[in-house]
Amino acid sequence: MNFCSQCGARVSLRIPPGDTLPRHVCDACGEIHYQNPKVVVGAIPEWEDRILLCRRAIEPRHGKWTLPAGFMENHETTAVGAARETAEEACARLGKSELFALIDITHISQVHVFYRAPLLDLDFAPGTESLETRLFSEDEIPWDEIAFRSVALCLRYYFADRKSGRMGIHVGAITTPPGHE
Amino acid sequence: MNFCSQCGARVSLRIPPGDTLPRHVCDACGEIHYQNPKVVVGAIPEWEDRILLCRRAIEPRHGKWTLPAGFMENHETTAVGAARETAEEACARLGKSELFALIDITHISQVHVFYRAPLLDLDFAPGTESLETRLFSEDEIPWDEIAFRSVALCLRYYFADRKSGRMGIHVGAITTPPGHE
Repeated sequence: MNFCSQCGARVSLRIPPGDTLPRHVCDACGEIHYQNPKVVVGAIPEWEDRILLCRRAIEPRHGKWTLPAGFMENHETTAVGAARETAEEACARLGKSELFALIDITHISQVHVFYRAPLLDLDFAPGTESLETRLFSEDEIPWDEIAFRSVALCLRYYFADRKSGRMGIHVGAITTPPGHE
Repeated sequence: MNFCSQCGARVSLRIPPGDTLPRHVCDACGEIHYQNPKVVVGAIPEWEDRILLCRRAIEPRHGKWTLPAGFMENHETTAVGAARETAEEACARLGKSELFALIDITHISQVHVFYRAPLLDLDFAPGTESLETRLFSEDEIPWDEIAFRSVALCLRYYFADRKSGRMGIHVGAITTPPGHE
C-alpha cells in the first residue's frame, strides 16, 4: 500500500496512538488503513461414499485438484459462500451444510472455513475455473495432486471421521510456507 | 474507496472481465481492489460457573458489556487472536481454548469466531479499552446491557449448552441491522 484509498495522498507505515502494531496511515487525511486476514470458504460435496473435487483451470496450482473454495464475498454467510463457490467451480447444488473445519493459515493471513454438504444431484460440470470435476472415493483421492495444504488437511480430517463413524468439527492451523513444514 | 492504493490514480466501480460482482478497479494500473468480510475473534473466559465480561470504555457501545473480542490481526490464528483480545481488554490469561461459535453477520460483512477457554487465574483487570471487568454467573448477566448481538447470541448458546451438560460448536447468523430483526 502506497497511497490513501480515501484521498489519494501518500501513506506511511507507523504505529497509531493507542495501537500496538504498525498500520498504513495517511499523511494527509489521517485515515488508518487496517489490513486483516481474509476468509476462504469451501465445501466438501458428498455423494454416498464419494466427494466431488475440481481440477483447477487457473493459477495458482493449475491442473491440481481441490475442493470447491474461494474468497468469501461481502454480505454473504460462510455457508452461502461455500455453496456459491461450489456452483461456480463445479456447477453443482448442495443440500443443507454442516460446519466441518476451520483452518488458520498464518503465513498468508487466511482463515479457511469448510462445510460438508450433500450434492442434490449428479448434474455437475466444470465451471470456468475448472478443467474437470469428478467424484472420488477415499482410495481414489489423488493425494499428490491436491492443490492446497488446507484442502489436503480437510480431506484427512474428513476420511478419518468417516472411518470413525462420527463426523466432528475440526480446528487446524498451517503456520509455515510450503516446503518449510 | 476513491483512489488506487498501489499507484494513487482514481478507481472506478466496475465488473472485471470473468468476474460477477463490481469491484474497485484502478483506471491507470488496472489493479483490482477486492473488499472482503473481516474476522472478529473473541473469547468466553470461564472460571467455575462464571464467565468474564468487559464493560466498554470505547465507542461503539461505550458503557455496555461484552466478551473480549476484536478484529483478527494478520499472521495470527483465530485462537491466538481471541487470547490476545482477552489480554488486551481484560489483562487476563487463558488456558487451552475450544472453538465454540461461528456467527456470520452479513449486513456488516463480519465473521465472529468465539473460543471458550478457562481463565488461568483471577488476576484480571480493565485494559485501556475497558471500564470494568467482572465475573458473571448466568443469573447475573446484564442481558439488556450487552454491547453486541453476536455476543448476546454466543452467551445464549453458552448457557443453553451448560444447562444441557454438553458443550457444542454453534453456527449462527445475524442478517439484519439492529432494530430491523
